[in-house]
Amino acid sequence: TVTKQILVLPGDGIGPEIMAEALKVLRLAIDKFQLGLELVFDELGGAAIDKYGVPLADDTLAKAKKAHAVLLGAVGGPRWDTLERSIRPERGLLKIRSELGLFGNLRPAILYPQLASASSLKPEVVSGLDILIVRELTGGIYFGPRETKVLDNGERRAQDTLPYSESEIRRIAKVGFEMAMLRNKRLCSVDKANVLESSQLWREIVEQVAKDYPEVELSHMYVDNAAMQLVRAPKQFDVIVTDNMFGDILSDEASMLTGSIGMLPSASLDANGKGMYEPCHGSAPDIAGKGIANPLATILSVSMMLRYTFAQPEAASAIEQAVSDVLDQNLRTADIWLEGMHKVGTREMGDAVVAAL
Amino acid sequence: TVTKQILVLPGDGIGPEIMAEALKVLRLAIDKFQLGLELVFDELGGAAIDKYGVPLADDTLAKAKKAHAVLLGAVGGPRWDTLERSIRPERGLLKIRSELGLFGNLRPAILYPQLASASSLKPEVVSGLDILIVRELTGGIYFGPRETKVLDNGERRAQDTLPYSESEIRRIAKVGFEMAMLRNKRLCSVDKANVLESSQLWREIVEQVAKDYPEVELSHMYVDNAAMQLVRAPKQFDVIVTDNMFGDILSDEASMLTGSIGMLPSASLDANGKGMYEPCHGSAPDIAGKGIANPLATILSVSMMLRYTFAQPEAASAIEQAVSDVLDQNLRTADIWLEGMHKVGTREMGDAVVAAL
Ligand SMILES: CC(C)[C@H](C(=O)O)[C@@H](O)C(=O)O
Ligand SMILES: CC(C)[C@H](C(=O)O)[C@@H](O)C(=O)O
Repeated sequence: TVTKQILVLPGDGIGPEIMAEALKVLRLAIDKFQLGLELVFDELGGAAIDKYGVPLADDTLAKAKKAHAVLLGAVGGPRWDTLERSIRPERGLLKIRSELGLFGNLRPAILYPQLASASSLKPEVVSGLDILIVRELTGGIYFGPRETKVLDNGERRAQDTLPYSESEIRRIAKVGFEMAMLRNKRLCSVDKANVLESSQLWREIVEQVAKDYPEVELSHMYVDNAAMQLVRAPKQFDVIVTDNMFGDILSDEASMLTGSIGMLPSASLDANGKGMYEPCHGSAPDIAGKGIANPLATILSVSMMLRYTFAQPEAASAIEQAVSDVLDQNLRTADIWLEGMHKVGTREMGDAVVAAL
Repeated sequence: TVTKQILVLPGDGIGPEIMAEALKVLRLAIDKFQLGLELVFDELGGAAIDKYGVPLADDTLAKAKKAHAVLLGAVGGPRWDTLERSIRPERGLLKIRSELGLFGNLRPAILYPQLASASSLKPEVVSGLDILIVRELTGGIYFGPRETKVLDNGERRAQDTLPYSESEIRRIAKVGFEMAMLRNKRLCSVDKANVLESSQLWREIVEQVAKDYPEVELSHMYVDNAAMQLVRAPKQFDVIVTDNMFGDILSDEASMLTGSIGMLPSASLDANGKGMYEPCHGSAPDIAGKGIANPLATILSVSMMLRYTFAQPEAASAIEQAVSDVLDQNLRTADIWLEGMHKVGTREMGDAVVAAL
């Protein structure tokens, strides 16, 4: 079998710690299921700024393009926050998404039954929660042109632009419908079509694509209402598809409904199944180096990678089962710990998943 | 005393019903506290489209400019949803905000102790919740230029723009700090300064304005994190100040934390204390005409109006006390009804507030 490459980018903050555990699990899965996958390593974000002077080096990007998948820890931290926006860690993240064409961001928000009480919402509102947010990731206002002008009266005016073309909308809408077909066949498209022109085009194209998916029940919702409905009755949703900025806000809100964002993986896919996989949580600089971060979201990102990019559902399910097993063993890192549970550090948690696998 | 005018715009859906009750309360307050206020009436939104062919007629706008305050029910509904965006009910709302210069939107999210159990969040997470969101209301992407172009490859691209000038940011930042001074002296400014240029200018100007308010503790938060924190631990906030779009999303999310959006009023102020007052909830076309809508948010909007525009704290407090009294009497409209409570309709609720006042 041809060996396929995975580029590993541990990143900043807790990134290297959680990645170390995820790699133990990944290496075991590669052996056990004879996956024929090879790991290559580099840096992204703050770590890349320190090493190469830029948040994403050309050489790193070339490696990422050559690899079949990228596994990322987390980027950013206060050490680099005083840098100019154009050379900050986040810029590396935006650039790699854009250069690899990773327009389809999958953000599941799942409540693990073992962690139900960690949610700030009432049990009956969130028990069994399982929604998927599909966020457009390489267009819209995070990538549109921007400028700051000096007006005639001498004051500055800064401006961002939110552009969407038909083809950009069509391809992410398709991802939304495809995901709905794999799940409960309900898709909610979120926009602000009562005010924004880009949202009007969004809604029009989503309606067009819907014709190819007669089995999927499509609805539309304004973003302000969606932000409310996620709090009021999140289980009404199956799949949500939305633009880059609305998706950024709503997917974070949805993750937090579960109360355990340390458990949630994400995938960012191109048109051919190549993807970048990373935990939903950030680099948590406040706890970096303390050995207490939760590695499970990164481990579950490995599982998503095996499922979506490498089409290895058996290995993916085995990892998910191992994670569920360690939760059943009442092992908990600090972020998901509750009275009566056994508190463990990052490494112990990783070792427990390895043992369960 | 000179008679000051209030322009009453009942609007669409449940608007006329809830307004009828609010006006009973307002008329009683005018008599009882000798406020010397006169009511004039007109239409906005769908009702204005039906009557005048436009969502905001020039004559209505002239009346609004002449009045000291505008009291609004709610606008919009499916009947007008097929109209082109530029002549839909929402356009009337955006235009009156802009023409009157109502840049400062105050959206309190308060959990009434009597209604604590209505929230979808756990009691310990929301009990005693009292936050104020200050939303910029006449700038940003809801008012920037927009266009749809045909690209060289024949497909369309739609684009919106998000502009903010220094002076627009400065005046809303001041409102944020002033409100913080009246409350617990903590202000959180929400932006996406790691990506957006308008947010970078926003943050810079907020920092400048902060120098004039040394007593206020200022923090900054990215909008995606703010959407999470509102779910995780909303009581960490006192006052939030943010731009038009982020404010739209976050203020609706925050209202829903209380579980009783039917209780929440809002104010939209210009630079001189003139304001438009309206409930946070929408026009609820599904229950319009049934006599079951909750009039309390509109009644509390009257109270906000007396407090902010007419500087009548005594009358304002009396109305708030009357609302609290009817809740203590266990009277509830359907939206906030719970087992053991006495369910009442729109009119009974209004009458009960009048009686309590
Ligand atoms: C760091 C930032 C640019 C990024 C985004 O907003 O896309 C992050 O919030 C995310 O969601 O991955
Ligand atoms: C109707 C719409 C234009 C409006 C807005 O987004 O401003 C509404 O959602 C609101 O918040 O008052």
